[in-house]
Amino acid sequence: MTILELLDYTGVAVFAATGALSASRKQLDIIGFLFLAAATGIGGGTFRDVILGIPVFWVVNPTYLIVCVTVALVVFVLAHRIESRYRLLLWLDAMGVSAYCVMGAAKGYAATGSPTVAITTGVLTASFGGIIRDLLANEPSVLLRPEVYITAALIGAAAFTGATVAEAPLWVASAIGMGAAFIVRGGALRFGW
Amino acid sequence: MTILELLDYTGVAVFAATGALSASRKQLDIIGFLFLAAATGIGGGTFRDVILGIPVFWVVNPTYLIVCVTVALVVFVLAHRIESRYRLLLWLDAMGVSAYCVMGAAKGYAATGSPTVAITTGVLTASFGGIIRDLLANEPSVLLRPEVYITAALIGAAAFTGATVAEAPLWVASAIGMGAAFIVRGGALRFGW
Amino acid sequence: MTILELLDYTGVAVFAATGALSASRKQLDIIGFLFLAAATGIGGGTFRDVILGIPVFWVVNPTYLIVCVTVALVVFVLAHRIESRYRLLLWLDAMGVSAYCVMGAAKGYAATGSPTVAITTGVLTASFGGIIRDLLANEPSVLLRPEVYITAALIGAAAFTGATVAEAPLWVASAIGMGAAFIVRGGALRFGW
Repeated sequence: MTILELLDYTGVAVFAATGALSASRKQLDIIGFLFLAAATGIGGGTFRDVILGIPVFWVVNPTYLIVCVTVALVVFVLAHRIESRYRLLLWLDAMGVSAYCVMGAAKGYAATGSPTVAITTGVLTASFGGIIRDLLANEPSVLLRPEVYITAALIGAAAFTGATVAEAPLWVASAIGMGAAFIVRGGALRFGW
Repeated sequence: MTILELLDYTGVAVFAATGALSASRKQLDIIGFLFLAAATGIGGGTFRDVILGIPVFWVVNPTYLIVCVTVALVVFVLAHRIESRYRLLLWLDAMGVSAYCVMGAAKGYAATGSPTVAITTGVLTASFGGIIRDLLANEPSVLLRPEVYITAALIGAAAFTGATVAEAPLWVASAIGMGAAFIVRGGALRFGW
Repeated sequence: MTILELLDYTGVAVFAATGALSASRKQLDIIGFLFLAAATGIGGGTFRDVILGIPVFWVVNPTYLIVCVTVALVVFVLAHRIESRYRLLLWLDAMGVSAYCVMGAAKGYAATGSPTVAITTGVLTASFGGIIRDLLANEPSVLLRPEVYITAALIGAAAFTGATVAEAPLWVASAIGMGAAFIVRGGALRFGW
């Protein structure tokens, strides 16, 4: 498994978990869990691939769908035991944004070679999943602080793209991008930025 | 005309009628009828084709647009004579979901050969049209009971895909899938499941 | 630069300005300006290109993204000096609709040769940017009078397509289409149609 595949599975699983937690907070049934987990897990990446004109990742490799279903079932069984589902949702969402802003930028850069396009697809990919989830679950959009959310995705995508243009190895650029996004988003959650 | 083309025209016409009935309930003018009929009629299939990376059906064959326009005009002339437009909307919508979960699964299976992808595109295609209509017309989303709605699409898509994998002829698999979805959705409407 | 490129840049810049003005009305920070300007500026054209199955314009040519960023920064600096940002937003939006209904129809006609498809992509392209902006900024959808808005796009797209089918030169057809749309939309703003 390559670094990018690992990032992609992580992003899908983590966003699927946030979708399932939203379903749990709304006390939906198992179908609601499956639908929200899948829509949130694959939404951002679907949008990215359609815009870039490349085959949609889960159509090529349905394993991503199995990941969403598995995550939805696990959260369905365990969610009521978790003390603060909203707190957990916020932190998982921060991880998802960090993974997805890098994935989006990496695919955008690979498809076009343009740093501007890479940063744009990074931000769009990272923010789309959360927007879809909050719209479908009727939660306050992108979890209270939309501007910090988008700022985190922008900084992460720009850091990854900058490191890539400077010819850093892929795993270094990915770590820098994810770290930068997570520090901004996590800092906002922890210290109320 | 093949079975799938027939299903596609039926799905488009029936969903277009529900869009036009929504326009009627909101007392929109003729432009509102045309827009809501077209958006609802072609919305689900557009989404399906874009995700599967195949040419969008109404771009290839504009007859589908003519169907939407015709349906919108007919409903515009007749709608005020119908006693319960909402009741009719609900039942037409149930027909549309049944036709579209099979169409979505059939196209997804044909494009990828994966049952998992087929079931997913079946559910997405069937639910997308209704979500778009309710969003644009500002009706309660997917008509009151979103979970039964998605369950019906899921069961219909799974039944069609299962029958197809078991090598049932196309018309048998289509009948099984549509029947299963319509029984679940219709039962929910009739008996308040 | 061709006529169509000029129209496309105009549509992107003008819609980006309406997105930035929405951000200003909501007192968002600079990131909010950038996001709303980009989403509104490139939203309609992205939708058009994805549906037509052609490469998305700003992925091919990132200059469009630079235009959005520049417009967002200019509006960020100047917006507080403008007396009625809403009034300006309405008129810029009317210009954007006029440019985009022609661009959408032109690309749809070039891709398919079908007048029906051309008119449909014209209306969808012109209305999608405004719908996205109003959804994200939580403004009343397509600025108060959705039906006149869609009517303007429909008349502009139909006028352009009619002139093109009648073999009018591109610049004549474009001027007729834009003029027709702008008269309808502007008349609605000025005289309360």
